[in-house]
Amino acid sequence: MRCKRCRTAPVAIALPRHHTALCAACFDRYVVDQVERGIKQYQMVRRDEPVLVAVSGGKDSLGLWDLLNRMGYTTTGVHVQQGIDGYSNASEVKTRAFAEANRLPLVVHDLNREYGGGVTAMADTSRRSACSACGTVKRYAFNKIGRELGFQVVATGHNLDDEAARLLGNLLRWQVDYLVKQSPALPASHAKLIRKVKPLFRLTEREVAAYAVLRKIDYVIDECPMSHDANSLQYKAVLNQLEHQSPGTKQFFYLEFLRRQPLGVDSTAEEVVLNECIRCGEPTTGTLCGHCRVVAPLTQTRQAGADPAGPGGPGAPAAPVSVDWHA
Amino acid sequence: MRCKRCRTAPVAIALPRHHTALCAACFDRYVVDQVERGIKQYQMVRRDEPVLVAVSGGKDSLGLWDLLNRMGYTTTGVHVQQGIDGYSNASEVKTRAFAEANRLPLVVHDLNREYGGGVTAMADTSRRSACSACGTVKRYAFNKIGRELGFQVVATGHNLDDEAARLLGNLLRWQVDYLVKQSPALPASHAKLIRKVKPLFRLTEREVAAYAVLRKIDYVIDECPMSHDANSLQYKAVLNQLEHQSPGTKQFFYLEFLRRQPLGVDSTAEEVVLNECIRCGEPTTGTLCGHCRVVAPLTQTRQAGADPAGPGGPGAPAAPVSVDWHA
Repeated sequence: MRCKRCRTAPVAIALPRHHTALCAACFDRYVVDQVERGIKQYQMVRRDEPVLVAVSGGKDSLGLWDLLNRMGYTTTGVHVQQGIDGYSNASEVKTRAFAEANRLPLVVHDLNREYGGGVTAMADTSRRSACSACGTVKRYAFNKIGRELGFQVVATGHNLDDEAARLLGNLLRWQVDYLVKQSPALPASHAKLIRKVKPLFRLTEREVAAYAVLRKIDYVIDECPMSHDANSLQYKAVLNQLEHQSPGTKQFFYLEFLRRQPLGVDSTAEEVVLNECIRCGEPTTGTLCGHCRVVAPLTQTRQAGADPAGPGGPGAPAAPVSVDWHA
Repeated sequence: MRCKRCRTAPVAIALPRHHTALCAACFDRYVVDQVERGIKQYQMVRRDEPVLVAVSGGKDSLGLWDLLNRMGYTTTGVHVQQGIDGYSNASEVKTRAFAEANRLPLVVHDLNREYGGGVTAMADTSRRSACSACGTVKRYAFNKIGRELGFQVVATGHNLDDEAARLLGNLLRWQVDYLVKQSPALPASHAKLIRKVKPLFRLTEREVAAYAVLRKIDYVIDECPMSHDANSLQYKAVLNQLEHQSPGTKQFFYLEFLRRQPLGVDSTAEEVVLNECIRCGEPTTGTLCGHCRVVAPLTQTRQAGADPAGPGGPGAPAAPVSVDWHA
């Protein structure tokens, strides 16, 4: 079968939600178009503005970094080494390899070295789920590192499946406070916060994976071993079932939600006052920020037990273009 | 295992969403309690008010009729004979048998006799899906028959699964106009409309089926053969998957939605003006009502072809407590 756009090259991927099927070259143009359209629609990044890209080593974040780089943006990667056995080392290796191959600067933030423990230890000591602890610490790191390095915006690799699954979860539990904040571009609502953008929000997970494969990006294929029963995977699975029955379901669900925001909810009434955390000084809605609630029990445990891990542990292999970041 | 309520009789059914398991007698009380609670919460029916019950012959509608009758309400059933081969006759037979066994009055509205064709023919001639044609004609019949017989309220057997699936569909497609109308109790918004109530909205499909089985109600088990690929079945299936993972998902999703209505949408702004249909005089938002758009092409076809079917065809077997209804 021939590409439905150029009508010459053989089809590389079918896109049922767009009633089309494209060759590798036309699909590549489609992906770039969708990302450009998303960036423009939400005025995510100015052409001359340096962008910090949060990179896990998976298809989405490496695909995003590759795309922004190809599109001419000045980018720096930031990778949080979570210290999860049998997963995080491979993620760091692939992230460093991508940075090196593309001569792109990379900042690595190693939780073990910084706090004397990784996500698993933080989850244990703070009595949170691993996903909750990890998300809190990563969001904190992206913002703080970005701000201290002079960035005004951080981009993450969230795709349409991620956002649609999150929307479904928020609706099933009627988390209306989260609904009004679910935008692909969040402004800096405090002097210490930088903007957060999700340029891949118009592309499905399958499309981003196909892009990464066609671009021969060497990414971590495994899902994080801690997330195997996460609700978001359930939501993605049921949305994929519905998508299979009615192609375009996910796209309409999320993009039409965005078009209708804020859904009659008075967003000015939802405005929250941000304080500075009494422990670290970063913005928080309470007195002690989420990050400090996650890491404080761990650092206290480590100090009490004089654990040999912590700052000064074995360093990650140095790459010419990457730097390690310490608070 | 013993019932978690009375601690004596053996368990008949587990109710994971309530973290309990009940014997037959305690489950029966639970079902009656939930229906009473729903009726009271929405002031659906006054104790002294006669209720028209829409009865298809399935577990939900026969279960509802049985419940309302046991709870002391004065009820009359109304059954629409849809004329679907291999399905509608069995439905009518079981409905008539239930009415007769319980000495309850039943009105049967036979589409073939009334219009010279059933749901399949109506769908063909009006170029609608069978589900759309059927729903339109049934809602019309319930309201018109109810009003002409002096009822002010009609009850349908919609359960929690039906309502949660409908809510999910309305959200996936952001049909906000439908969202504001999705209540278990709709008021009479026009002099020719009667109230519509759904007393089973707090009970899952599985619970209503268990009730029908325990009450030895002989109901039609098969799904309607026309609905096999209906979206609502897909939505029910995915909600059941999520419910299996997290018991209580469906209940929270729908009941919390109701609690939060109208979701910041200004319901007065959504007020619609109802006109009277130029063909039949029943209320409609346009000029020709949905019912007439469905049945007019069929009756025109029949008149043009002088089809022998139509008023005067073979009558359904007469039951002592049932009457046939003609417009």
